[in-house]
Amino acid sequence: MRRPVRFMALWWSVFLVITSTALALEQIVEKKVFELPEFTLVSGQKIPQVKVGYETYGKMAPTGDNVILICHFYSGNSHAAGKYAPDDPAPGYWDVIIGPGKPLDTDKYFIVSSDTLCNLNPKHPKVVTTGPASVNPATGKPYGMSFPVVTIQDFVNLQYKLLQSLGVKKLKAVTGASMGGLQTFQWIVSYPDFVEKAIPVIATPRVHPWLLGWGKLWADPIKLDPKWNNGDYYGKAEPVDGVIYSLMLTTMSAQGFEWAEKSFERKWASAEKDPLKAMENDFLVHDALQKAGAARAQTADANSILYLNKACALFDIANGFPSYEDAVKAIKAKVLMISANNDLLFPPEQVKEHAEIFKKLGKDVSYLELKSPNGHLGGLTAITQASEAISKFLAQ
Amino acid sequence: MRRPVRFMALWWSVFLVITSTALALEQIVEKKVFELPEFTLVSGQKIPQVKVGYETYGKMAPTGDNVILICHFYSGNSHAAGKYAPDDPAPGYWDVIIGPGKPLDTDKYFIVSSDTLCNLNPKHPKVVTTGPASVNPATGKPYGMSFPVVTIQDFVNLQYKLLQSLGVKKLKAVTGASMGGLQTFQWIVSYPDFVEKAIPVIATPRVHPWLLGWGKLWADPIKLDPKWNNGDYYGKAEPVDGVIYSLMLTTMSAQGFEWAEKSFERKWASAEKDPLKAMENDFLVHDALQKAGAARAQTADANSILYLNKACALFDIANGFPSYEDAVKAIKAKVLMISANNDLLFPPEQVKEHAEIFKKLGKDVSYLELKSPNGHLGGLTAITQASEAISKFLAQ
Repeated sequence: MRRPVRFMALWWSVFLVITSTALALEQIVEKKVFELPEFTLVSGQKIPQVKVGYETYGKMAPTGDNVILICHFYSGNSHAAGKYAPDDPAPGYWDVIIGPGKPLDTDKYFIVSSDTLCNLNPKHPKVVTTGPASVNPATGKPYGMSFPVVTIQDFVNLQYKLLQSLGVKKLKAVTGASMGGLQTFQWIVSYPDFVEKAIPVIATPRVHPWLLGWGKLWADPIKLDPKWNNGDYYGKAEPVDGVIYSLMLTTMSAQGFEWAEKSFERKWASAEKDPLKAMENDFLVHDALQKAGAARAQTADANSILYLNKACALFDIANGFPSYEDAVKAIKAKVLMISANNDLLFPPEQVKEHAEIFKKLGKDVSYLELKSPNGHLGGLTAITQASEAISKFLAQ
Repeated sequence: MRRPVRFMALWWSVFLVITSTALALEQIVEKKVFELPEFTLVSGQKIPQVKVGYETYGKMAPTGDNVILICHFYSGNSHAAGKYAPDDPAPGYWDVIIGPGKPLDTDKYFIVSSDTLCNLNPKHPKVVTTGPASVNPATGKPYGMSFPVVTIQDFVNLQYKLLQSLGVKKLKAVTGASMGGLQTFQWIVSYPDFVEKAIPVIATPRVHPWLLGWGKLWADPIKLDPKWNNGDYYGKAEPVDGVIYSLMLTTMSAQGFEWAEKSFERKWASAEKDPLKAMENDFLVHDALQKAGAARAQTADANSILYLNKACALFDIANGFPSYEDAVKAIKAKVLMISANNDLLFPPEQVKEHAEIFKKLGKDVSYLELKSPNGHLGGLTAITQASEAISKFLAQ
């Protein structure tokens, strides 16, 4: 079949545009490892041979004043942007705002994205973490529930050491969503002279009693599973059912009612199995939750869920200060708080309330609310609504 | 010690006022039993020797046109008003709106409050129900998971038979909160010529996918408990941990963030046990949820939770109609829909949306939103905000 030359040229230019766009968007990144022979926790306990992963995007300026730190959410890890290989099915979770010309512009900024202790998914091939599933060098066996209690402040202190090892003298900004937002708040309280700006997303400066309650409900089903065995299950049958349930609940609590409505309606899980006909015949949303929980459970670790949950429960910027107000007064960074409408975990009303207190105490704070059908997850799925605000905030 | 006569008289009159007020408010009520030798379900299956409890307040008019039916919520029963004995710690759940001079005025109306099949709390001494914990006359053993699937429509059909047995020819109104609201909607669709007015509270005319999802999460932990044993646990160790967990989750999902904030703050469960110091040291909200779950579990039955949950999941007024719109078109009753702000289970946006569709289809519908810190439970705790609207609606 013969095609006119003009037509072929058009095809070729379309191909070139597609390819170059793909190359521009799909930066190839790698997971790096930060190690310390010993790390002292806020509680005074010490962990030997600590390892956490991190990724970097862009280049550090010779002046060293272009560094932005990203902290990750509860079930995430430091893979915030780019792909490890061109054929990865999806890029990092905040890729839409990280990259050349995007709000977290890798042409301007050197971005460090850090893992935390007790990552929820220690079985994930790209997660590097130290937690209850790690081998205790003193015994040669996994710690299990003998691992010490860790806190958000410990995560931040470890990130500080990571940044020091990279030669970072000051942060242009720190940001993160959800548990990453908790770390962001902790950063500006713990290291007020080290951070210029902070963008905590779908998070508050303390974990409120409401979220404390949910945390218990995310953790407890693991203990219901007899295979949990007080945390001593490594090398044996693991409490998979408890973990699946915990992650189904996490999935649901982080979503919003519009999501359920649009994704599932009242459809049955199987066209042949009318839910009226048998107790075990389910609706589609049931099946979807089950599959989501099962998929997420493949890389998750039961004890790590318990420890990470505890770290979140303990979070309050007031820790170590006479009061919450004293903690806020210690902040020097400019703050942009971003919430999501219909967020059940960090309701916008609570985020706004904190923004008002910050303002009252003389802090430079601004507030933005994302609209999304995804409840709490709007902080990830609808983040481009904040693109302009983030760009302006960083350029100020 | 001598007291002046005037002072004694004052005391006496205060005593009289207190006593008469107490007598007026605390109507003494009793649980009655309705029995049928056989009851045919929507599915076509039959249950022999069906029993459900009910209570009545006020007196039926000779004309029989003053009857109001009340349907109860998921974890409730027909004890909506009054006390069984003067020293009962609390009256029925909607006592604030039921009684002489109250919106559901027992001086005017004859109020019937009915139990449902598969009541969640068959061990409660005042609950009369037929469900999986009942003895199957054919085997002499509890049904367990061999009990047939039941639906909200079955509850309503059974109530219709109860009302017939009482000689009721027509209902002035039907009302109920939450699952009681589902029954209310079912009533006006199934028996359009039998009901003049309907007040569904914190409910929608179908269970939306969002609530379907939550239902799965309320049910599944029971199956995580190995003592559930596929529903065969009667006379053995029961799956108490699974039931406690399920009811903790129900408690939390039915509440709102302001409740958690005001009731618990970030207080510790025990002043000596800093949550930072040990994995098992909890916050007060954790302890409160645990205690609430444990208290509620004492009268609850694991299989009954599964069956009641299923009945709610199946609820959709469109069942048996070509479409949802056709079901709405069948309605003849005037409807007052009442929602609660911050209700996570039946979000006000959804209730409002249905009210708008009802209106568009020519139905006589009005809408009211209660404000409360208690999320879904606002439909119980803040119901007096609707007192005037209910009185007017019934008097129209």
